[in-house]
Parts: sequence; structure tokens; C-alpha cells
Amino acid sequence: MIQVVQAADFSLKREDSDVYETERTAVKEILTRVQADGDAAVRAYTARFDGVELEDLRIPEQQFADAYNQVSEEFVTALRAAIQNIRRYHEAQKRPSWMLPDEEGSVLGQIIRPLKRVGVYVPGGRAAYPSSVLMNVIPAQVAGVPEIVLVTPPDREGMLNPGVLVAIKELGITEAYRIGGAQAVGALAYGTETIGAVDKIVGPGNIYVALAKQAVFGQVAIDMIAGPSEILVIADDHADPDYVAADMLSQAEHDPMAAAICVTPSADMAVQVAKSLAEQLEKLPRREIAEESLRNYGAIVVTQDLDEAIALSNRLAPEHLELMIEDALSYLGRIENAGAIFVGRYSSEPVGDYFAGPNHVLPTSGTARFSSPLNVDDFVKKSSVIHYGKQALLNNGDKIITLAEAEGLSAHANAIRIRLEKEGGR
Amino acid sequence: MIQVVQAADFSLKREDSDVYETERTAVKEILTRVQADGDAAVRAYTARFDGVELEDLRIPEQQFADAYNQVSEEFVTALRAAIQNIRRYHEAQKRPSWMLPDEEGSVLGQIIRPLKRVGVYVPGGRAAYPSSVLMNVIPAQVAGVPEIVLVTPPDREGMLNPGVLVAIKELGITEAYRIGGAQAVGALAYGTETIGAVDKIVGPGNIYVALAKQAVFGQVAIDMIAGPSEILVIADDHADPDYVAADMLSQAEHDPMAAAICVTPSADMAVQVAKSLAEQLEKLPRREIAEESLRNYGAIVVTQDLDEAIALSNRLAPEHLELMIEDALSYLGRIENAGAIFVGRYSSEPVGDYFAGPNHVLPTSGTARFSSPLNVDDFVKKSSVIHYGKQALLNNGDKIITLAEAEGLSAHANAIRIRLEKEGGR
Repeated sequence: MIQVVQAADFSLKREDSDVYETERTAVKEILTRVQADGDAAVRAYTARFDGVELEDLRIPEQQFADAYNQVSEEFVTALRAAIQNIRRYHEAQKRPSWMLPDEEGSVLGQIIRPLKRVGVYVPGGRAAYPSSVLMNVIPAQVAGVPEIVLVTPPDREGMLNPGVLVAIKELGITEAYRIGGAQAVGALAYGTETIGAVDKIVGPGNIYVALAKQAVFGQVAIDMIAGPSEILVIADDHADPDYVAADMLSQAEHDPMAAAICVTPSADMAVQVAKSLAEQLEKLPRREIAEESLRNYGAIVVTQDLDEAIALSNRLAPEHLELMIEDALSYLGRIENAGAIFVGRYSSEPVGDYFAGPNHVLPTSGTARFSSPLNVDDFVKKSSVIHYGKQALLNNGDKIITLAEAEGLSAHANAIRIRLEKEGGR
Repeated sequence: MIQVVQAADFSLKREDSDVYETERTAVKEILTRVQADGDAAVRAYTARFDGVELEDLRIPEQQFADAYNQVSEEFVTALRAAIQNIRRYHEAQKRPSWMLPDEEGSVLGQIIRPLKRVGVYVPGGRAAYPSSVLMNVIPAQVAGVPEIVLVTPPDREGMLNPGVLVAIKELGITEAYRIGGAQAVGALAYGTETIGAVDKIVGPGNIYVALAKQAVFGQVAIDMIAGPSEILVIADDHADPDYVAADMLSQAEHDPMAAAICVTPSADMAVQVAKSLAEQLEKLPRREIAEESLRNYGAIVVTQDLDEAIALSNRLAPEHLELMIEDALSYLGRIENAGAIFVGRYSSEPVGDYFAGPNHVLPTSGTARFSSPLNVDDFVKKSSVIHYGKQALLNNGDKIITLAEAEGLSAHANAIRIRLEKEGGR
């Protein structure tokens, strides 16, 4: 059911994703119409794709009120605790604007400002996850974004997932629309009569949403387009094979394309994990998904030693990495590439997916080599500030002229020279 | 020669850039061949496009030595001063990894690490600018990137711009190749026999370079694709019209597509700036370029008042913004969107282009709404760290299970439950 392999040339197979020509064409047409016809186009596509005729695109206040009756008290309590944790973690990412004055009279600086208006896409249907609302909205709120607008597709009655609604309400989001798909991305990017255009669009979605985000990129900023999810568990003989297997399954149940990989220097551990996977799989409601994921993308990789395990992990640059090894903390400095690193036997991936505080929007498919978890920096923009006083310019003007002339840019040199002549008596 | 207009509906006209189908096809073929044939393909394209047969792709040591004889002593002195300034500014952007422990036994953190290997593209020919080397390499060095590899296209004799060579040497770059175009981007993205693949590619280039960077994006990270350059000068009656005009021309001389705009509440200032532009233009070596730029994209915009000027600037989100107004510093907090802000009459744009310290790689075409100057953050990656001790998990496990089950993800719940059962005696 799961392959057990040697480390040497193990690599994660992933299909080429550039095969969506039909979808790309459909998305282009939707975006063009939304840009031209605004709300009318959004309404028409919502009728066609979501099967519901909506007069008011906004989520009605009554739906929020009703949602609280459809979720448990425990859910609200747990959600509030998660919100607090996620806020606390992301607060630690904030940075002030700063300046750097010198004695000559120059003052340099960097102003860090929140983006003005951000759109958050939240999937509907079976992939409507309250945790997605939290993880995409909170970093924007912590960054100080004054206008956050949320979109999420409705069902055929125009209704939404109650957990998602409660999450929206708990975060204090006041502008939320029941629209989805490429038409929602178009509305956010171009603006319509009722929905103002945003500066950035974040949040997961199906292939139409992903392609629409790619298409409007440049017009607005977007977050990364996430691939299927991965976990890599490095386990030694001290690991509990049931924990390893359980954590792998929590990844595998997401999606038949998800990848759950155990890397271990212990052949014995490999056997035990495989056995535990088979046992636990039996009882899983989402067994079919998890089984297909394990069969196609799962692996237990046996390495020569822990060093080889870590080298393999660094090469794969996993989205989630669990260190279920003795003295796990000591290995932290050797992890070069990973979205989120879970340290020790109690640090199960779902702790981070929902609750601990770090973001669950993480770089997939090896992009942790150069990408980062969604964070507060993704919702700010920086401006450089340059002030040169008279003396600073007089002291340094000649050097600037030299550099400009070396590049053959005389007007650049002139801009300095004209000031030196007028003010410096040259 | 330059339009003088009212503010109301002024907007910067920019052509749609998505018209490069022929070039895109050519680039795709080049990338495919470089990926398949490595060095041989790179050599073949260098022979075809740059007109030179190269055995050794590396820039020979002798060329560096010779370069120092071709530049002036003043140039080297000025370059070293600029390097020191740019380093000092970017050092202020560095951030430490951090952690957030709590009393229950959880430790959360964020590790910030430099990218491992970065490629810097430096254009050749007339656009070979030493300042480009400085501005793209120094942030990577300050971030701590251990491997920085530079590529720049050779002339028909295999030679390079001496100023660029001196800049490379002064920065201590030891891996530099004389290759350019899409073939150089391909070599950096996929690796060849002699050039190792990188994690990110930065630096300006012509349309082939830009399209190649877009094409390999995802495989590696890239910086933004810069559009033509812009300056917006807000000037009141206290500004010196000659300074305003000189700074506008320093932008206009770059490129016929560059945009130089003065925004002023003073009709008198508008007239004086137009007059000074005409006078200074006469003497410019790059007069034709500057004139075409001013004619097509230049403007002097007369506003009702300073408030309207600032509102227009915020709407256009200029790459470079000069505040040539009385009490300029007081307006800093009202600037919402700008790549770099130059404050006061002595803070001419070339001060920042070459010397002061902030980066000259800035967001163009209104993207300052959501993008930032090139900076140290562009050369790091973050990993989240999550450690939950036993007590932290026992205290919070039920909440995590509640959230997982609310999303219908039982395996996620199981991963927590199995630990609570085994270790918590549930």
C-alpha cells in the first residue's frame, strides 16, 4: 500500500501543472466579462456555476446570526483560543518603520505601511474551512490592513458553511460577499459597482481560482499558488510509530495528491510505521482519499543514518517537517528548507494546522527553498526615504557625478551639478 | 514638447505588455535547449546572439585586472563609498530569527535563513551599469547568501564593461560568467555542467531576459519584472524650477518609455518648469531619448492645491517621488504609495540611484501600491517552528480535536487523540 525505498535517488513525483488550457480560456473569458460588466457578470456567473440567483451579493446579517446556532459552544471556544494564538504569533512578525540619520545631514529610512485593501478568498463546499479564514485574515489584520474583504462561494440556496461564517464574525470582518470562482477573483481585481478593487488577493481555491489569480497578477498582488500538501516525518528508533503513522495520515486524508513521507534510518521503524499505517487506515472515514494518496505519493524511505535523512529532507524542502527524533531541537539548525518544522513527539502537524499560532499557508512542492509561510510581511509595502541636506550633497556630489558619468547618464550628473553650482558656489 | 494638464483625470498611459508572442516562443525554445544540452546550448546561443565563441564561460581573471586600468581612480573611490553606503542601509533591514516560549511548554518561532544560491543578471552593452551590480548583489550579501553567481553578456570579443567588472571585483564576487539573454537565465534556473542551479534570479534585462525569468518562475524565485522608470515631482512655489526640470530629465534620459511628471499647485511653477526643461534639454547628450520620453509620457500637472497633488501621487504610486515643497518632511506620513521618496530640495533622484544607500530597484507602473524596493527580505526564507511539550498538548488537545472535527478531517483529530490516549491516560 505504501512504497518502502532506499534514500539514494528518492524524489517526490509531481505532475507538470501546465496542462489547463481549457480552464485557462474559460477563466480569461470570465475575467473579461467581469471587468466589462461588473456586478451583472458576477451575478450571471454565480447563477450559472453556483446555481443560485442572488440579488444581494453581500452575505446577509441573518446568516451570521443563524450560524452561531449551528455550531457547538466548544467550537466557538476553540476557535477563539486559536484566534488568540494566531494573533500572538503574527504580532511577533511586525516591524516598525525606521530611520538612519548621519552627521553630515543625510537621513535615510524605510517606511513600512500596510496594504490598503486586501481580498481573501475562502473556498466553499467540502473545502470550506474555518481555519483558512483565520490563517489568511489574521496576518492582514495584524499588518494593519484597513480594508479586508472576504469572498466565498454560496451553495444552491445561497447559504454558507456555518463554521466559516462564525470565523468571519469572530474576526470582525464586515465586508463579506457570497461569490466564488474566477468571477470573484475578477471582482476583487477590477472592482465592480458594489465591490471595490483590492491591492492583493490571498487564499486557496480550485483550479479556476488559481488560474484567475495568476491572470490578474500584476494588476494586483497575489499570494503563492499552493500545490498539493506534503508532510515529511524524520523518525528514529525513539519515535512512536503510531504517532508517525497518524501524522502521515492527517496529511494523506487531505487529497489524493497529498504526499506523506517517513524518512528513517531504522529499518525496524520503517516496518512498524507501515504496519501502523495499515491499521489506522482501516478506521478512517476518509480512507479512500488517504489510501490513494499513500499509494501514489506516500513513501517510507530508509536511510543509512540520520545525516542522510536530514540531507534528503533538505533536498525535498517539505511543506511540513516533523522531527520525531531524540534530541530533536539539536537538529533544528541543520534544517535548510522547510515551511514549518514540528519539533518533538507531541508536536503533531494538526497542532500547527489549527491552533498553535504559526500560519498553515506554507510553501509546497519544494518551494520552501525560496518561499516562506504566509506572514505579516505579505501584507505590507515598503518605501525608501532619502533626505540629503545641503552639506551632505556638497560633500558627496562629486562622487555621485563621477558614478553617473561613468554610466553615460549626463542628465543624472546635471541634476547634481546644477545644485552644486547654485548652492556650493562651484 | 511636454503636456501641461489639469489633475482631474490625469493618468499615466502604459501600453499593454502582453504582446510578445514571437519572443515568448523563442525564449521557450532557448530554455528547453539549455535544460537539455547545458553548456553546449549556452555556448551555441552565445555564439549566435552575442557573436562570440567562448571556450571558458567564466570571466577570465585577466579581464578584471585590466578593467582597473580602464577606469579612473575617482570612479573606484566613488564606487567604494557607494558600496559602504548601500551596505550600511541594507544592514538595517536585517532581522534575527526569534522565538516565543510560553509557560505551558510550547515554543513557537520563526527561523530566518538566507537563500543558498542566488543568480544576478547584469545587462551588457549600453545598459551595462556598475550601479546595477551594487544594488542587486549587496542585499543578497547582507542577507548572508553564501553563493552569489553573476552573469552578464559579452561583446563580440568576449569582453565586458570595465565599470561592471570593477564593481564585481570590489564586491568580492568570485563566480561570474560572461553569458546573457534567455540562455543565461536558463543556465541559472536549470543548472549546466559548469553552472549550478540557483534558488532565485534577480536583476534587470531586456525583453528576452524578462520573459525567460517569467518562464522559469516557480522552478526558481525571481524578482519583479520592472517596467519603464518613472519620477513624479511634487513642487510648490518654494521649489527651484531648474532643479525640478533637471531631476525630470534625469529620468527621461533613461528610455523613451520613461515617464517624468511634475505635479504642482502653482501655475507659475508649471510655466517655469516647462521653460527650464526646454533650456536644459538643449544641452543633453541623450537629448533625443529625453525628448521622446517627455513628449509621450511627460506631463506637468496643475492641481487645485497641495492636497490634490498628494492625492494624485498616491493614485499613480510612482517609482520615484520627490517632495520639493516647503516643510516637505511634514508630508511624509501622507504618502501612501511610492517606491522611494526623496525629501527636500537637495535630495535629487540620482542621490538615490547611485549613492545614498537605499536600493534603486523599485516597483514601477503603479505597483508601489503593493510592492517594495528590492531589499534584504527578498534574499531570505522563513521557516515556522512549532514545539509543543506534553503538558501543552494535554492542555490544548481537545480544542484542536474540536477544530479538526468541525472541518471533517478525522485523521487530523486522530493524530491528537492517539497522543492524548497514550500519554494522558484518556
